[in-house]
Parts: sequence; C-alpha cells; structure tokens
Amino acid sequence: MGKTETSFSYHPIGIIHSPFRDTDGMPIQPTGARGVPGTIAVDERYREGLRDLDGFSHLILLYHFHLSRGYSLMVKPFLDDSERGLFATRAPRRPNPIGLSVVRLVRVEGTLLHVEDVDVVDGTPLLDLKPFVPLFDVRQDVKTGWLDGRGENAFHIRADRRFRS
Amino acid sequence: MGKTETSFSYHPIGIIHSPFRDTDGMPIQPTGARGVPGTIAVDERYREGLRDLDGFSHLILLYHFHLSRGYSLMVKPFLDDSERGLFATRAPRRPNPIGLSVVRLVRVEGTLLHVEDVDVVDGTPLLDLKPFVPLFDVRQDVKTGWLDGRGENAFHIRADRRFRS
Repeated sequence: MGKTETSFSYHPIGIIHSPFRDTDGMPIQPTGARGVPGTIAVDERYREGLRDLDGFSHLILLYHFHLSRGYSLMVKPFLDDSERGLFATRAPRRPNPIGLSVVRLVRVEGTLLHVEDVDVVDGTPLLDLKPFVPLFDVRQDVKTGWLDGRGENAFHIRADRRFRS
Repeated sequence: MGKTETSFSYHPIGIIHSPFRDTDGMPIQPTGARGVPGTIAVDERYREGLRDLDGFSHLILLYHFHLSRGYSLMVKPFLDDSERGLFATRAPRRPNPIGLSVVRLVRVEGTLLHVEDVDVVDGTPLLDLKPFVPLFDVRQDVKTGWLDGRGENAFHIRADRRFRS
C-alpha cells in the first residue's frame, strides 16, 4: 500500500490551557472532567475564522497528544484490566497521536475561547476546532464492545503516566 | 505564540474507499450518506491494533482532506447562503485539513473494515480510527448556532467543487 508512505504536516492553530500540568490524576475523558474550566488561545492569525462560533454550545477539539511517545498495538486502557487492540481504545499513544474531545463553549473573548469539560494537559497543541452538531455527530443504537458497562468508570478513574514514553 | 510554529508529521494508516470518485454530488455529512457502503483498507502493519474493534457498532474516522488546497477564514458552507467563520463550519479547506466522520462498522475482515454511512471521497487517507462511545462523545442540550434548522438539509444537499483549490 504505497499510498500510506506519504506524510502530512500539520501545525498548531492554538494552545489548550487546563488545570492539568501532567497526565497524572487527570480525567481520562470529558465525562470525568465535567465543569473543569480551560481556555483555548487561538493564534491571532485565525481570528476571523472564529466568527459565528459563539452560537454553538459545544466544540470538537482535535489536538496533538504532545506528551505521547511511540505506541503499542495492544494496550491496557485506563478502563480495563485486559489488553485491547489500540484502535478499539482511546489511548493517546497512537501511530498518529491525534486526540479528540467534545468541550462546552462558555464564552468567546476575541481569540480566547473559554471552555468547560477539559480533559487534556495544559499546553496541548490544538490542530482543529469544529462545531459539535448532533445531527452529524450523534448516532443511536450504539454498541461499545469491551467498554460496555465500563465507560461509566470514566466518571472517577483518573489517568496516570502509563502512556508517557 | 512561538509554540504554534512547531509542526507535526502524520502518515496514513490506511485508505478509505467509497463510491464517490469526486466531491461533486457527494453527501456532505454522514447524515446524507445513510447506508452508503465503503471499506477501509488498514495498512497490514497495524493489523493487531484492530483487535476488539468488532464489538463496536460505530467508528470515528479522522482523515486527511487530500483534495483540499489552502483555506479561507470566511466560507460559504454547503448548508448556508451567508459567509461564516471557518471554525464554525465543517468545510474541508482548513489550516489543518483533518476530517471527522462517524460511520457504522458492519464487519471486520482482517485489515479490511466494511462500513456504512460513508461521506468521503474514494482514496481518502485515514489518519486515525477511534471507537465511537456515546458516554464520551455525545452531549445534551446542544446549541448549533447558524446551523440551527439548516442541518436537516444535509439529508438532500450534495457537495460540489467549491472547496477544491
């Protein structure tokens, strides 16, 4: 599959700020981060692109897991005791370490976005911002495999350093 | 903001195949692509990482909008007649042209994933696969700004070439 030899270069469009200086003790999903405040400092050059954003209550953040190094194809997720196939988990160490979180948009102040439900480390480079649109992003009758009955634990389980290098 | 001068290099982990050879006439969201079949050919080297995926009914695909060139900070989306701030839209021409779609996983056949609700062009490079988990990814009481009352048009409006170069 020669096509997969290509590579793409992306750059941060801003920086996500949160109360979490490290992965240790951090919520593992926005589920466990309800109400946790953060800010997104979008680079000044993208100011105009933020117009109309304030009409949306939730944003999808795509970001680079900057503390993540390398990856394993089998991982023991925070929410399980067994090893699982990497792509059946949300673990940060991935071939392309791109993270995805849905956060609540509280207020837009110029290029500074005030958000809540932040589950990322302070200083995380933001790659993209999209409006969260239930009609596009929500599905019914969803099966969640090994996570079934375990996802709720994200309300209290906290991260540790297992996915650091 | 010196930190945003960094750049990250990602590579395709597979290729998404769909019936759409071009953006012309393509559904603009999975909403308008219900039942459209596609396959994802994951690179052989990631085979082990696909374990446990078959327990999930829906996947989040992150991919590179490979036909997209450049971007404007104000865009006229397929679903509106007015220009909107780029980050308040899902338009493919973005500073980092990363696309996100939730698709239905029908069957895993080795490294070939049979999916439905595919709204991307054939040959799109896949960057990441994540399980769709309502507890993590779904929010209630969502406001959708300018898209309010317009999102439903994604059921019939089709794309054109406006976001090509």
